[in-house]
Amino acid sequence: MRRVAIVGAGMTPFAEHFHLGIKDLLPMAVSEAVAHVDKGFDRKDIQAAWFGELVSTDGFAAGVMADSCGLLDIPVTRIENACATGNDTLRNAFYAVSSGHVDVALVVGGDKVRETSSRATFWEWMSMTRDQAWDYPLGLVAPANFALHAQRYLHESGATREHMAMVAVKNHKNAVPNPKAQLRFEISIEKVLAAPPVVTPFGLLDCTPQSDGAAALIIVAEHLAEKYTDKPIWVRGVGLGVDRVMHQHKQDMTTFPATVRAAKAAYAMAGVGPGDIDVAEVHDCFTAVEMISYEDLGFVDRFGAAKALEAGETSIGGRIPVNPSGGLKAKGHPPGATGIAQCVEIVEQLRGVASNQVDGARTGMAHNIGGPTAVSAVTILSTDVS
Amino acid sequence: MRRVAIVGAGMTPFAEHFHLGIKDLLPMAVSEAVAHVDKGFDRKDIQAAWFGELVSTDGFAAGVMADSCGLLDIPVTRIENACATGNDTLRNAFYAVSSGHVDVALVVGGDKVRETSSRATFWEWMSMTRDQAWDYPLGLVAPANFALHAQRYLHESGATREHMAMVAVKNHKNAVPNPKAQLRFEISIEKVLAAPPVVTPFGLLDCTPQSDGAAALIIVAEHLAEKYTDKPIWVRGVGLGVDRVMHQHKQDMTTFPATVRAAKAAYAMAGVGPGDIDVAEVHDCFTAVEMISYEDLGFVDRFGAAKALEAGETSIGGRIPVNPSGGLKAKGHPPGATGIAQCVEIVEQLRGVASNQVDGARTGMAHNIGGPTAVSAVTILSTDVS
Repeated sequence: MRRVAIVGAGMTPFAEHFHLGIKDLLPMAVSEAVAHVDKGFDRKDIQAAWFGELVSTDGFAAGVMADSCGLLDIPVTRIENACATGNDTLRNAFYAVSSGHVDVALVVGGDKVRETSSRATFWEWMSMTRDQAWDYPLGLVAPANFALHAQRYLHESGATREHMAMVAVKNHKNAVPNPKAQLRFEISIEKVLAAPPVVTPFGLLDCTPQSDGAAALIIVAEHLAEKYTDKPIWVRGVGLGVDRVMHQHKQDMTTFPATVRAAKAAYAMAGVGPGDIDVAEVHDCFTAVEMISYEDLGFVDRFGAAKALEAGETSIGGRIPVNPSGGLKAKGHPPGATGIAQCVEIVEQLRGVASNQVDGARTGMAHNIGGPTAVSAVTILSTDVS
Repeated sequence: MRRVAIVGAGMTPFAEHFHLGIKDLLPMAVSEAVAHVDKGFDRKDIQAAWFGELVSTDGFAAGVMADSCGLLDIPVTRIENACATGNDTLRNAFYAVSSGHVDVALVVGGDKVRETSSRATFWEWMSMTRDQAWDYPLGLVAPANFALHAQRYLHESGATREHMAMVAVKNHKNAVPNPKAQLRFEISIEKVLAAPPVVTPFGLLDCTPQSDGAAALIIVAEHLAEKYTDKPIWVRGVGLGVDRVMHQHKQDMTTFPATVRAAKAAYAMAGVGPGDIDVAEVHDCFTAVEMISYEDLGFVDRFGAAKALEAGETSIGGRIPVNPSGGLKAKGHPPGATGIAQCVEIVEQLRGVASNQVDGARTGMAHNIGGPTAVSAVTILSTDVS
């Protein structure tokens, strides 16, 4: 059970990259991760790779990644776990390095959602992340699916659409100085409330954009960390949680059991609790999802998200800043890359070089939820080895 | 770096299961694997699962697996690696158990290829296992793709279509007593040679059928093996190898570098060589692929496959029986399940209860190649812990 450190992290800008394919985006992210290793890194040191991609645009995913990044003599595994793909990709690579069978691994994630080819990637993504026999034919694509939860959450918690809008306003503000973010402009609560409706209670500005992009991490076994960096970031906890896919089986629409399970596993492995998290990247595909996740991750009490937003607790400078990168909401959301890009942000935070630096951050979290609410992955990173 | 044992193994029959969906097949395989654990097994002991599926028919793969098998409180990761999915799924679960972070894991694989729904699963599979920008538009679907290799192999090696037919005849014969096999009838060399052409040099009887099915393994850390079984089968080596996806980059069409790499890794981890393998399940999606694989796996010298077939070396009773289950050719090939089902056969061989028992088998191998020739996974199992 060896400890595992991140020694390099990089990502492409998230954007509608109509002019770039997945074969362009992946090498961009890998190159940045390699260049980011402060004591230098030879790609030949990579012994194995894990590649997270939700929907393949170019065919055989692992091979296309290896080909386009020039990684031809190492094993490559593709991981897919709906919108939790990114953090689960890191989790699987972590196990391999922790086991002692791999010393140096590459973790890459990417997706082309704004596809210009004949493949309807976006709709394939939609169909791939829910039950095709039950949810999908009812029209429960992602916004509708999460809206069922959000509507019930507002009803039971007493939170309002204004609170949801606060999430969007906060995350857009955070995106402005982040050169990798897709929507780098501020918005107001009034603007969010006046945006065209998507599905009640979500207006357009409650929703993540559709994004293309890639992100990469280089992880190594503990005995090699010092060789590559003076500032290793330790993977302290990884957790994955699952819940029923079909909505008729969900017993409480105001909480995501998958997140609760993933967080419990990650906290237990890391030996920390919610109070130890200095900064978090939380899955805000829709504004209300960030609110519910505050509660599921233990950052606030049940139905306490609205109050925390009002008090600015999750803003930069607050008790536990959430989505300093801009989050899915404003940084963007290419599903295979999203979780890994969250880790890229947390690595920068813990190294003190983030766009919206959280002062003195030593322990951070990345969180995904997907397959609408049926899967969650949580990663806890820290400057402290234990 | 803990040792890992298989304590349970099961699979559905491989067939055109038009009346069964993936949600039926997966629980069937899992139930058989659970029932197979000789000292008894409580499903609640499963701490994590890995699910190999090439193409999802029912939507969110990990969730559908968890839902249909009633596994709701454990993490589930989907692995996809073209036709090497099955053995790579075991590889990833192996790392997690070996690391010490998971003690008991479920490894499941399945695919519905003969789909009756509106989704064209078979063609999606075809497009998912090659480069869509290069190979696929040229018509290089699997038979055509492998045929380029086979044709060149016949030209350079001096082997003939009769030798290829010997593979089909052998594997069909092996399938007859296997209750899980899809094509349980004997064929003759004359019949293979007279079958309708698919793509030169493959006739219909040189090709695997299209199959539906699922297979499952239960693996545990070494300290738990004795709790569940008196006959643990040890996962001694796992290897995954990658090669260029596009054919214009391949330098020698008569060998599969992905297999060579995967085998090298698996042999090194297991501390054994080709001469130690008593029985093997080898990826025979097309007859000539089994021949090339004999050489890449080190069972025979380069271009020695024809001679080995003539001498019956790979038949039951021969020096190294290959595909005693019937292989992909006659047992069938639902890609996500195939590699795991190969391991099910090897487990039965090493426990002495296989349909075509290889006398005294102690060490066996399972081998996949896919993404036509761009990825290979090899697993080495043994009754001997080291």
